[in-house]
Amino acid sequence: MNLKIAVLSGDGIGPEVTMQAKKALNAIGVVYNHEFVFEDAYIGAIAIEKTGKPLPDQTLNLCRNTDCILFGAIGDPIYDNNPTAKVRPEQGLLKLRKELGLYANIRPIKAYPHLMSSSPIKKEVLDGTDFVVYRELNGGLYFGKKTTNETETYASDLCEYNESEIAKITHLAFKAAQARRKKVTLVDKANVLETSRLWRRVVTEIATDYPEVELNFLYVDNAAMQIILNPRQFDVLLTDNLFGDILSDEASVISGSIGLMASASIGDYHSLFEPIHGCYTEAKDKNIANPIASILSVAMLLEHFGLFEEAKKVIAAVETAISNQVVTVDLKVDSRFGTNEVGDFIANHI
Amino acid sequence: MNLKIAVLSGDGIGPEVTMQAKKALNAIGVVYNHEFVFEDAYIGAIAIEKTGKPLPDQTLNLCRNTDCILFGAIGDPIYDNNPTAKVRPEQGLLKLRKELGLYANIRPIKAYPHLMSSSPIKKEVLDGTDFVVYRELNGGLYFGKKTTNETETYASDLCEYNESEIAKITHLAFKAAQARRKKVTLVDKANVLETSRLWRRVVTEIATDYPEVELNFLYVDNAAMQIILNPRQFDVLLTDNLFGDILSDEASVISGSIGLMASASIGDYHSLFEPIHGCYTEAKDKNIANPIASILSVAMLLEHFGLFEEAKKVIAAVETAISNQVVTVDLKVDSRFGTNEVGDFIANHI
Ligand SMILES: CC(C)[C@H](C(=O)O)[C@@H](O)C(=O)O
Ligand SMILES: CC(C)[C@H](C(=O)O)[C@@H](O)C(=O)O
Repeated sequence: MNLKIAVLSGDGIGPEVTMQAKKALNAIGVVYNHEFVFEDAYIGAIAIEKTGKPLPDQTLNLCRNTDCILFGAIGDPIYDNNPTAKVRPEQGLLKLRKELGLYANIRPIKAYPHLMSSSPIKKEVLDGTDFVVYRELNGGLYFGKKTTNETETYASDLCEYNESEIAKITHLAFKAAQARRKKVTLVDKANVLETSRLWRRVVTEIATDYPEVELNFLYVDNAAMQIILNPRQFDVLLTDNLFGDILSDEASVISGSIGLMASASIGDYHSLFEPIHGCYTEAKDKNIANPIASILSVAMLLEHFGLFEEAKKVIAAVETAISNQVVTVDLKVDSRFGTNEVGDFIANHI
Repeated sequence: MNLKIAVLSGDGIGPEVTMQAKKALNAIGVVYNHEFVFEDAYIGAIAIEKTGKPLPDQTLNLCRNTDCILFGAIGDPIYDNNPTAKVRPEQGLLKLRKELGLYANIRPIKAYPHLMSSSPIKKEVLDGTDFVVYRELNGGLYFGKKTTNETETYASDLCEYNESEIAKITHLAFKAAQARRKKVTLVDKANVLETSRLWRRVVTEIATDYPEVELNFLYVDNAAMQIILNPRQFDVLLTDNLFGDILSDEASVISGSIGLMASASIGDYHSLFEPIHGCYTEAKDKNIANPIASILSVAMLLEHFGLFEEAKKVIAAVETAISNQVVTVDLKVDSRFGTNEVGDFIANHI
């Protein structure tokens, strides 16, 4: 197979972890005789610095014309503490998601047997946890109209959804459940929000197309509790953009480190693969960032293109690294392996 | 002291746990020679059943004319699965919060040494955790305009804040921090939301009035993770209505059971005290519901009226019950004590 891949490594630790992901892909290319062609482009704070825009037109055009996107991380503390900045790194990612119609963000959550001791949660609670979050990525509070008044003493954000936005990701979630343990849990706040009530109605209707899949409901406050109390109960967790952001980060504690969590953002024509962790600027260029999330996002990329054996190979190599304790300091306090060494080990193992 | 207390016990397990809270208050009255006069009124599903409204005028009037409110729980599964119901139990509570100007919801989070084994989180992570959530309760996505279109294929909820709403609770949070470990953490999503940026600006300005208190910021997704990874880092966690709802329920896993978590809702003229757990309809009338959250809300009530010794007495009695394992089944699977027995033990101990 030939794949043209846009590489948007972004800010902070983005470039160094993405580098390891490329190594893994190159190794797969050699072993299975695929050709992966990478093209780099700017996004986020680095793009603002170079071009004044968080998503330069050139980057967007490249992404429209490649088979998929490998994404690093974006963000910079200088923007975080400046609430009045009108141009921000995050706008780059949000615009990219919207322009390319990447409406479903898929985040697998798994308890790794070798890593349970790094999780703050007890082993007996974690054991066997294996679920996937389907987060809507093109709507909700993220993209509705935002206002402030002239004196900047008032602000608003609009949360909006329409039936077709909900329907699209719901079908994906039910299809995923069919191939898994056949359970979808819709998380919302239907006792308060009108948009949640729309979600509940649309999802309930679509569920009738998938009679073998069980559908149940949780309020988001309860879900935030259940994810820690009893994570095994979940199979496919379907939710909106904001709730998905919060709950999937929370759920990352299950795997032992957010440095392990990969995600795929899928649309009808485009796809993007990224670690769920942020830019982690403090760790930049120190060779301490965990590259596994980025490497596992490569496995999701391969699966997306039907290269299941190749994806398994990547996952197996990651598991070998973990079980041999070839991991970064977030997983083993006194580890002597850095970002590069873990990346090399995994690539060599492939 | 003489206090006239409106008792809104509501739905599900609300009445039975509130009954135990009244027992505790009565015991305090006897020991310290205070007079607590209770007046019952309907709210929630039971109010809809009796009067057609989730918050009857009579209830609201009573609440306006009492010193404070003791609240149980509201909700009923028949409304949850009916997204089109126009009248809902939750509207009663939301309207009460708004009408009485109860703008600050205060939720203490503590790891109880005797209960750490019931928490899903490891003891070494929990040890020493002691923080308090200040959740804004009169604004945000809960109260902004809600719309649906005619065909009900579109819905929206508006999140709004103005400077004075934010300022009020922020001052309370900083005052609380002054009397504690002098740290306020503002949780928001300022990298995406305009309202969050307003929060960040207003809170940053107010912080200068409290130079001895340290202010820091966390994005809500990161906060949802940090609450589990490292709960000891928090002292006062300040946040908006929706984030506060999600994070405080999540944080309840720290104490070992949501059945232990009390809260106070405070305004300039009124105050309401309630367990944070919901109506838990499945447990209704089975004498298995944990009354401790409701009883601890009585301790918050007493503190609010300056009765600190009395509040300590209630807390000590609760701690005695816990350390003697006089607790309900949520805390000890094979417990032979029910709601009533735990309530009686605590009242007798006072
Ligand atoms: C960087 C930020 C805008 C983004 C989000 O909130 O979607 C991130 O937290 C994520 O989850 O991908
Ligand atoms: C019942 C519901 C409307 C309420 C809320 O979301 O505020 C509850 O979850 C709470 O936290 O008090």
